[in-house]
Amino acid sequence: MVKGFRAGAVAAGLKKTGDLDLGMIYSSVPAAAAGVFTTNRVQAAPVVLCRERIRSGLCQAIIANSGSANCCTGEKGMADAEATARAAARSLGISGDSVLVASTGVIGAPLAMDCIDSAVPLLAGSLSGDGWPDFARSVMTTDTVPKTATRHVSVGGKSCSIMAVAKGAGMIRPDMATMLCFVCTDAAVEQGMLSQMLRAACDTSFNRITIDGDTSTNDTVLLLANGRSGARIETRPDAERFQKALNELLGELARMIVKDGEGATKLVEVAVTGAKTAFDARKVADAVAESSLVKTALFGEDANWGRIMAAAGRSGAELDPDRVCIWFDSVQMVADGRAVSPDAETRAAEIIRQQEFSITIDLQLGDGAASVLTCDFSVEYVRINADYRS
Amino acid sequence: MVKGFRAGAVAAGLKKTGDLDLGMIYSSVPAAAAGVFTTNRVQAAPVVLCRERIRSGLCQAIIANSGSANCCTGEKGMADAEATARAAARSLGISGDSVLVASTGVIGAPLAMDCIDSAVPLLAGSLSGDGWPDFARSVMTTDTVPKTATRHVSVGGKSCSIMAVAKGAGMIRPDMATMLCFVCTDAAVEQGMLSQMLRAACDTSFNRITIDGDTSTNDTVLLLANGRSGARIETRPDAERFQKALNELLGELARMIVKDGEGATKLVEVAVTGAKTAFDARKVADAVAESSLVKTALFGEDANWGRIMAAAGRSGAELDPDRVCIWFDSVQMVADGRAVSPDAETRAAEIIRQQEFSITIDLQLGDGAASVLTCDFSVEYVRINADYRS
Repeated sequence: MVKGFRAGAVAAGLKKTGDLDLGMIYSSVPAAAAGVFTTNRVQAAPVVLCRERIRSGLCQAIIANSGSANCCTGEKGMADAEATARAAARSLGISGDSVLVASTGVIGAPLAMDCIDSAVPLLAGSLSGDGWPDFARSVMTTDTVPKTATRHVSVGGKSCSIMAVAKGAGMIRPDMATMLCFVCTDAAVEQGMLSQMLRAACDTSFNRITIDGDTSTNDTVLLLANGRSGARIETRPDAERFQKALNELLGELARMIVKDGEGATKLVEVAVTGAKTAFDARKVADAVAESSLVKTALFGEDANWGRIMAAAGRSGAELDPDRVCIWFDSVQMVADGRAVSPDAETRAAEIIRQQEFSITIDLQLGDGAASVLTCDFSVEYVRINADYRS
Repeated sequence: MVKGFRAGAVAAGLKKTGDLDLGMIYSSVPAAAAGVFTTNRVQAAPVVLCRERIRSGLCQAIIANSGSANCCTGEKGMADAEATARAAARSLGISGDSVLVASTGVIGAPLAMDCIDSAVPLLAGSLSGDGWPDFARSVMTTDTVPKTATRHVSVGGKSCSIMAVAKGAGMIRPDMATMLCFVCTDAAVEQGMLSQMLRAACDTSFNRITIDGDTSTNDTVLLLANGRSGARIETRPDAERFQKALNELLGELARMIVKDGEGATKLVEVAVTGAKTAFDARKVADAVAESSLVKTALFGEDANWGRIMAAAGRSGAELDPDRVCIWFDSVQMVADGRAVSPDAETRAAEIIRQQEFSITIDLQLGDGAASVLTCDFSVEYVRINADYRS
């Protein structure tokens, strides 16, 4: 689907279930590479390794595993990440430092290197042009569905493709969501521009979602551009078109991640307008989108706007309670800080029974606006996270 | 029990269940009064009223209701809070502005003034020296147990008492916890000193607990001192003794609130040492104590230290992952950022099965220390909060 890229996966025995757990992406030629990584001070070995390697600006393959995050694993963890890259490079006949590594799973558990060593040759053999679904499955942990998306763009009269695979369902909050995402394009993009584009696209997608307010130690988004389509991004209109497609692509995956939020039954956009500043708008959106009380009310299908007011009020943003207005989709529940009517409650109760809807909060203080995608907080979320390691 | 104070409660029909829902505390003489209130920008009408009235420094009665928070209720809400105080004053034959008001319950629902008006005379008639347990029950919402505590202190050769009643089980986070607390003492304390003492006691108690990270619109702690014991606080040693007793008293109630946290099955102290600053220590303690992933792991009795590391890492505090040490009670699980041994896992698994234990995190960077009391995050918490209004 994306010229010059192949993908594949095998079951290496890292997951107790016997499912696919080791995946690879390979470009037939060295590709320009860009990365965006977790802001957590505790960073997994593969994140440290990728940060170093991405500086060269070139990369030819990615190897990713689920089952262990290879985080808080010390020097052995770094050695294991490097050895994994080396094994992948050997099996592909390419240089060791042109391989990037990503891991997801339990923190503190070491990588089972014997499993990886014996699986890598099979993994290289599994690569194919349509191995993406398998690859997507191999990076799943608590995800219930594999997540892939594609866009096609015309650049300089030539068509190119962008393909992305993501994983993530918990430990998700903005800056960044807990997740891995691998983006491949057959367009040719200069590395500096590629980095800028990736960062911009993350800001409008993965940095605007929250599931449970926690930030992972392993968040990684990688973007490889190998130029095999012959489409080369050089003019500003071409760059803008490509950026738009990239934003849409990552936006689609971000939405898929929230929708697949651990135990989630609803996808809710929290939009804030009329804040004094954009920063204030974001504070309110985050406080509401991350409030356990708001999220449990969403699960209970209770249009409890009082909890929204309370979360907005503690957000730290400039706020006049007597001016706040709140809508569920197009139904206004609160006008100037007070309940509109019992009728609005009834209509909002219908909206909140839907699987997807929006909550809009107008502070009536200025032009600041922001929005965040969130999900509800269910009994199932607690079950999943109480039992994760056992 | 506390000289010159009486308390009582009635079922006014504000709770659908028919339980006690309107309570009163009355001092036979005007008492010095101090208050600490929510930091939320959205503040309930009774909070606004109390803030105003507490400035006079004197108060003779408190009337409190559950069933409605009287918040986001506009001018009518303020008028209702004032009318409630007036009705209480009339029934007691005291001045209207010497009555303080507190409300707890659903945000946005108006006070049922007809219920209150007809119940207040009965309420005044219910007052007695041992009406505290009834009063404590009348302010309960999702609380499963009433919360009262007492201390006796010797001041200037005379014995005095401090009695406190609290409510709170959800919407709890530091600064301040979502709660009401009413403290009465028969010592004589000058009003300025009383305010300082109350603030200091809140800092070591209610500002160190978290249940779900949300801050209520109604948080109120009131302290009345009527001097009827004859004990007068004038010397520094007396003030220190009284402060110590007050700290212990509010600390005991804070602990009771977390223990009664909505759906909570465990009471856990998160203690951070070795941080660069006390502020950093608090950041780490809060991030760990409020992390949904840590709290669900506690519920699942899984000593998942990786989630503790991840929460500490995203807290914003200065942190070197390779120096972090983590203990469950006295069992060290992590030394210098890495798992200690499989044996430690086994021993920690025993500790986490207890109802109460501590998690200690040493950052090995400085002298900053802080601790926060938290509880686990259970399936029951979600059930309670999904169904609260229905």
